[in-house]
Order: sequence, then C-alpha cells, then structure tokens
Amino acid sequence: MFESANLYHKVDKTAYRRQEPKLREALLNAQYDLKQNGRFPVLILVAGVEGAGKGETVNLLNEWMDPRHIEASGFADPSDEENERPRMWRYWRALPPKGKIGVFFGAWHTQPVVDRVMGRIGAGRFDQHIAEILRFEKMLTDEGVLLLKFWFHLSKEQQKKRLKALEKDPKTSWRVTKNDWALYKLYDRFNKVCEPFLRKTSTGEAPWLVVPGANPPHRSLTVGKTLLAALRERLDEKPVKRLPDKNPPLLPSIDKLNVLRALQLDQDVSKQEYEKQLEKWQGRLNIVSRDPRYRDIAVVAVFEGNDAAGKGGAIRRVTGALDARRYQNISVAAPTEEERAQPYLWRFWRHVPRRGRFVIFDRSWYGRVLVERVEGFCSEADWMRAYTEINDFEQELARQNIVVVKFWLAIGKDEQHKRFKARETISFKRFKITAEDWRNRKKWDDYELAVCDMVDRTSTSLAPWTLVEANNKYHARIKVLKTLCQAIEAALARVKKAGGKR
Amino acid sequence: MFESANLYHKVDKTAYRRQEPKLREALLNAQYDLKQNGRFPVLILVAGVEGAGKGETVNLLNEWMDPRHIEASGFADPSDEENERPRMWRYWRALPPKGKIGVFFGAWHTQPVVDRVMGRIGAGRFDQHIAEILRFEKMLTDEGVLLLKFWFHLSKEQQKKRLKALEKDPKTSWRVTKNDWALYKLYDRFNKVCEPFLRKTSTGEAPWLVVPGANPPHRSLTVGKTLLAALRERLDEKPVKRLPDKNPPLLPSIDKLNVLRALQLDQDVSKQEYEKQLEKWQGRLNIVSRDPRYRDIAVVAVFEGNDAAGKGGAIRRVTGALDARRYQNISVAAPTEEERAQPYLWRFWRHVPRRGRFVIFDRSWYGRVLVERVEGFCSEADWMRAYTEINDFEQELARQNIVVVKFWLAIGKDEQHKRFKARETISFKRFKITAEDWRNRKKWDDYELAVCDMVDRTSTSLAPWTLVEANNKYHARIKVLKTLCQAIEAALARVKKAGGKR
Repeated sequence: MFESANLYHKVDKTAYRRQEPKLREALLNAQYDLKQNGRFPVLILVAGVEGAGKGETVNLLNEWMDPRHIEASGFADPSDEENERPRMWRYWRALPPKGKIGVFFGAWHTQPVVDRVMGRIGAGRFDQHIAEILRFEKMLTDEGVLLLKFWFHLSKEQQKKRLKALEKDPKTSWRVTKNDWALYKLYDRFNKVCEPFLRKTSTGEAPWLVVPGANPPHRSLTVGKTLLAALRERLDEKPVKRLPDKNPPLLPSIDKLNVLRALQLDQDVSKQEYEKQLEKWQGRLNIVSRDPRYRDIAVVAVFEGNDAAGKGGAIRRVTGALDARRYQNISVAAPTEEERAQPYLWRFWRHVPRRGRFVIFDRSWYGRVLVERVEGFCSEADWMRAYTEINDFEQELARQNIVVVKFWLAIGKDEQHKRFKARETISFKRFKITAEDWRNRKKWDDYELAVCDMVDRTSTSLAPWTLVEANNKYHARIKVLKTLCQAIEAALARVKKAGGKR
Repeated sequence: MFESANLYHKVDKTAYRRQEPKLREALLNAQYDLKQNGRFPVLILVAGVEGAGKGETVNLLNEWMDPRHIEASGFADPSDEENERPRMWRYWRALPPKGKIGVFFGAWHTQPVVDRVMGRIGAGRFDQHIAEILRFEKMLTDEGVLLLKFWFHLSKEQQKKRLKALEKDPKTSWRVTKNDWALYKLYDRFNKVCEPFLRKTSTGEAPWLVVPGANPPHRSLTVGKTLLAALRERLDEKPVKRLPDKNPPLLPSIDKLNVLRALQLDQDVSKQEYEKQLEKWQGRLNIVSRDPRYRDIAVVAVFEGNDAAGKGGAIRRVTGALDARRYQNISVAAPTEEERAQPYLWRFWRHVPRRGRFVIFDRSWYGRVLVERVEGFCSEADWMRAYTEINDFEQELARQNIVVVKFWLAIGKDEQHKRFKARETISFKRFKITAEDWRNRKKWDDYELAVCDMVDRTSTSLAPWTLVEANNKYHARIKVLKTLCQAIEAALARVKKAGGKR
C-alpha cells in the first residue's frame, strides 16, 4: 500500500508557486459549480500518520476555497452529548449537505486502528469494525456522497528525520514531545495494522488514496489536484438514462395468507375493562420511566399503521403516562429542504435520543420501504438496500442500550372505510381526512405487500415488530402500552444496577 | 425474518394442478431465452432447515426445466482434491456459465452457521465469515450473476408435526433418526444464529428469500414463480446507455518520481558471476522444492513485466530447477469462450494448485488492472473493484499456505526499443515481435501509471510485489530465483514439521 508514498517525492518551490494559483482558481470554480449543481455532497476523510501534514492540508483547503461552503470537523474525545448516543451519531451530525464539502479529521477509522495497535482489541473485533465501516461507507456512496479518503503517509526514515529536524531548531523543538518518540517506536506495529486495514477498507467506490506527506508542495498539489479531478468528473457527468435496477424481485404472494391477514383484527374489549387496564399499564409505564436504571437506557418507539388506524390516540395514551420533560414526539411528514440534502437516514439520526430519554416517532424511517416504495418516490435499488441500512441503524441503537419498539397498527379495509366516512361527517374530525387518504386506499394491496416484506426483513431480535390488531381501539392502546412496558422492563433488568453500564 | 414463513401457507392440490403446467411452460421458455440471450448466469442457493423441502425443490426444478442447462451441485464433505485447495475453490469450480442455471445446495453459508450453533466458533469469527460472504457475493453480482438465495423454513411446531407424521407412517418411519430429533432440540439455538445471519447477509442485490416449507404445493409455486419473475425481469431488460462510473479518480502523478522510475534498471552482473549465482540459487530452489515440508504448502509465482523484459527467460531458469512432474506453467492469453462465460477470476481459480505443487503464471489476473484498464477493455468500475477482488483472492490462497510471489520485470524505454529492433533483425526471434508490441509501446506512460497503481494497491504483506530491474537479464534472473527461494524457505519455516498443518 505504501510503495509509492515511501519514495521521497518532491516539487520545488518555483514550480509550486507557478501551479498553485491556477489550481486554486480551478478549485474555487469547481466549488461554485458544486454549490450550483447541488446534486451531491463531498466528504473528505483525512487520516494517516502523525506529522504527515494532515492539519496543514485541511488549513490549506480552507484557505484555497470559499470557507462558507467547506466545513472541517475534528473528532477527538467525544462530548458527553456524543458519549450518550450511538458511536456513529457524531459523524451523522457533521455530514455535509448536497452542494457542500465536509472534511473529517480522524473519523470512524481512527479508534479501531489505535485500539488494535495497542492490543486493546483482537483480530476478530478488528474485522468486525472493518465490516461495519464498509457497510456505512457503502451506504454513503449509494446515497450519492462523493467520498474521498486521503491517508497521509511518512516512511519510517522520513518520520525520524522530521522529528530530528524539529528538535534541532530552537523555534520548533518544543513541538517534539516524549509522546512523539513513543509513537515513532510503534511505527512498525502501526504499519502492520494499517496495511491490511487500508486493503480491506478500500473499495472501487471509495478507495484509500495514500498521499506522500514529507514534501509540503508535493503533498498540497497531490490533494488539490485529486480533489479537483474528482469534483470535475462528477460535475461534468452528462445525465444519461439510468440502467434498470439489477435487484431480484422479492417473493410473490401465492396464497391469500400473510402476516396481516393472519391477525384477528376484531378484539373485544369493553370500555370498563379498557379503563381498568389503561390505569394499570399507564401506571406501570410511569414507574418504569422513573426507575433509576432508566438513566442508562433510552427508548425509541416507532408507530406505523394504516391510515385512520388510531396511531395518534395510541401515542397520546403513551405520552399521558410520561413526564413531559423526558419525552419527545417526532411527527414525520415530507422531508425539509435541509433533510433532502442529506442521506436518507440523516433526518432520523438527528433525533436519536441521549440516555434517559424517550422518543416517539409518529411514522418513521420505514417510509422508505412503505410509501416511497409503493408510490415510486425512490428507485427499487434504493428501497431494496434500505432494509439492510435500517437494520444496521437499529443495531447501532440497540448497541447503545436504546430499546427500539416498533408498532404496526392494523385495521381492516371495511373498518377503514367506516372511519373515513365518519371523519367526513363529524365536523371537528374533518381535518383528519384528505383526498390523499382516499388515493392511498386504492393501493391497499400494494401497501399490504410492502408491510409484509417490511416485517419479514426488519423484524429482528434486536428490534422486533409488534403487529397490533386495531379494529378495536381499546385493545390496540392496551397492547401498545403493555408491549412498551415489558420491553423496557426487560432492558432495565439487563442493566445490572443504577448508574452501571452493560 | 421468519414472520411470514412461520404461518401455515397452503395451496390446495386442484389449484396447484391448474397452475403448474403454465408455470412449467413459462419457466422452460425463460430458460431457453436465457440460453439464447447468453448474457448472464443464474445461481440459485438452496439453504435452510432440515425437512423443509430443499431436496424436493431441487428435484422439481430439474424436472420442470431442461436438465441440460441446469446443474445442481451438492457440497457435503470436501474431497481430498478440494481439501488441499482454498475453501472457495470448489464453489468456483461449479459456477454456472452465462446462459445456464446452477443450483448450489449447502454452499458457503452452511459451515459458519453450523459451527456457530455448535459453539465451535465465536461471535468474532462468525462475523468474519459473514464479511467474507458479503465480499464474495458482491463480486458475483458485480460480475453480472443473477444470484437467488432461497432459505427454506419450518416453524418449530411444523418441524415437530413433520417428524411425528413421518414416524407414525410405517412406510416412512425409517426416515426419522435420533439425529433428526437431536436437531429438533437445537431448533431455538439454530434460530438464534440464523436470524442475524440472514439479516447481515441480505443485501439489495442478493436478499435472502425465506420460503415457507411446510406445504409442498405452496412451496413449489413460491420458488417457481420467484425464479420466473427474476429471469423475466433480467431477460426483458432493455439495453440502455450505461450510467457513467461513479468511481473517484486515483492519485494523479505530480512529480516525475514513481516506484518504477525509482529503480536502478541497469545492474551490472558479469556472465561469470551470473553462472556462479545461477548454479547456487537453482540448486537451492531444487532443494527447497523437495523438502518434505513442501507437501504442506504450494507456490504460485506470477510473472508480469514490460514487453521484451525477459519474462520467458526468467521463467525457464525457474523451471530448470524444478521437477517437471511438480510444476505447471500457465501462459495467459486472451480468454477462451468458456472463460468469457464466467466471472473474471474464474480462469485463474481453475489453476489454483493443490498442496505440494508449483504453478507459474506467465501473465495473470493482473491483466484486469493493466491491459484491460489501459485499453479500455473493461469499465472503470470493473478495474477499480478488481483491486479489492484480487486482494481477497490472494488472501484465500495465503490462508491455504499457498506462497504467492509476484514479479514485475522492468526495463527502460530505450532498452525496450533496442530489444524490439534486435528481435526484428534476428530471424529466429522475429516471431517474438508484432505490431501490437509497437502499439503498446506508444502507451508507455499509461501502462507505467497502471503498474504503479497496481503495486500500491495489491502489494500486501500476504503477497508482496517484487520489482525486478531487468535491463541486465542476468541480474533479473538471479533476483527472481533468490526471491522465490527465500519466500519458500520462510513458508517452510512456518510449517512446524513435515506433515503438520499450520
């Protein structure tokens, strides 16, 4: 991996001064074209060995380009906000939107490599990190992100020379600490870990680009010209007809049976029984939400269901049992402009709760495999890969002790018709029924198929779906409350003691 | 994952008899269209729980379609031929060519799942298997294979019913062994392993399709209709303009320096010194190749280099030291028709040696990132992903104790000109120089860039490149022999004792 970068590449200062202004102008033009085009974001990862010019290069990019459309983020020790959320949250938070350039300094690659060098993790765990990095980066490039991964390199000899030179000069000798020499001693061990790491995390869509770091003019031109070429290639791409998706079809429906039709939608619960049960489960939910061990977990509750299935009513029975300062209710509608400029899952990541919190999603990331699939708002390839991306997302949540509870509220087609009609006649309910509801209803079978595929492909032991028979609202609400309580109680039992980590 | 499949789906016999003939006809038509079209192969993976109808379904497919164009392969215990080669060799060997359908029964998925259930491997190792499976299947779908993965499922209840029913009937009771009931007892453990396994190995391009196995008519129609839909979708695809590749450019050349130009091509070795060294290293190579420990390793030597760099001469000095019964010399030219019908690496996998053997490749799989890249014989996306695929391939070889030694024989542009001219004048050398050689020479700089990228991206600790300064043939030949000897000696030292495994 380091053959070329181990050579002492050099550009003399005169040549550099001649080329630099042209490069800057071209980069600035490309940056404006990117802003104008607005169709993709650029993410530059900066990684590699100490002293190979990472910081200098980031500063240079900021100097060369319009700093309003380029944002550099460093990822040193996580803040407490970050520590209480899944590992990837802070990277999602900093992703550049379409039309802009983001520079990530020491992102998701750093920790696994350092941990492996220091012997804190074994080969198996290291490979798990690599697999997760590949899945994440695949998601980014599938979403259209132009991902450029620069690895700044110095040979062992160059590293030594650099430290000696800094030490010798009284003006810079203070920059060389014991830690630098200690790192230098680990050079071979780092190399042994980095080589397979770079090899395994290089893909056709996002290869590592190893930059020789010893000669600043050469290094700067290398990064600048690569960035320019990558931007121009993507910007000057002619929009052509898309290749049809290569995804195989999912299973067809052979008989009339499916997970929705297998439900007994009509469940008999009297008002009296309902009130008794409601009091019981709301009380219990309130108690578990105030358990001292709750500070070590968080809850994400997802509500999906047929139109008019009673999501709103069920959610109100949940929030009614909670302290208003502790929960957040996210109602998911069409994405905002800011959200459309980001990878699909971004708008849900931004609401991932920190510890001790409770977030309710009224509709959710499952829109991708429901309405977007059925209405053709995204391509087949997009919703097909979404199952994998969603599972990876929920795995990230579960790993951080976030309890993910997902409800599908199901009503029958006749029941829906009855409710639509009722909404039309009762004046204070009229706002709840629109032409779109009637249109969706015409695609009942398509939605049904999409829901069944969704359940099959995303109901996991980490985050199972609960199908709720909802022709009877009382039954539905009690089932929701009970399922939530039990899931939270199970999570609390896994937290050994208050304040402790799993 | 199993929500739908846990339901008792059912198609009655009358309905089945009505639908079956139409389905068979449509499948047969699709099979012929596939043969005619000849643009992609179909690979059907059959996996899942015991007794869910895997064997019956494979038999049915064979019955429904023309058995000349469909080939089923079972992968039980590996043969000794297979045992002495990398794990994936037997799957490569059985891959269907374009225009045909292959059915794999218990392929690469089986062992990791069983090993995990039995506690023979830990969670880390299991995830490594999953990562490798994903890389391999990505390569297949990138190469155009239509990959359909069927997972046959029975609920625990259905499994129990089935065993009881078989036991009760005197005609089938012999089919139920103690082992079946032992497996049944492991049902929950299997489930706990299979669920995350299916989740993590499902992708947009190759999702698992979970087939309910309890009712044979339903099961058969499910598989048949899915296969038909997948075939038709791909066959009826309109050929449209390809989307431009999304791959970012690799690093540009900034100064004049690169790994080839850094070489001292002229190395002075006298004829006398050469003969002394030749005798020494050929002798040593002969001795190491007859070492008893050699039975536990194998060697793959790759020769690439500029035209007229002396590959042939160097190879002859190697083979001159070897027992003719033990080595094989593979000269790589344009692929045959049979080879063109397979994924790119197939034609090299077929020559992977068993233990104790020595294979020399005169040109190799690196053609993809050299001539195919420079001449535009494949798309940018194809050669960009080839670096990853080649590294994965060589890792598979190294894991099986196959020593991979790769030589690039480098001569200068002037030296090449001299040799071309000499070949034109010396009558018995004239066959060695063609118009194509002169054409290639015009693209000297493009090839140089491709070689440098190749070295950077595929020189790994498992399979490093050796750059050989070859203006002086004597020097080149000695360096090749010496490098080979030392690599083999290092491998022998890793084999503890004769007959022992690493």
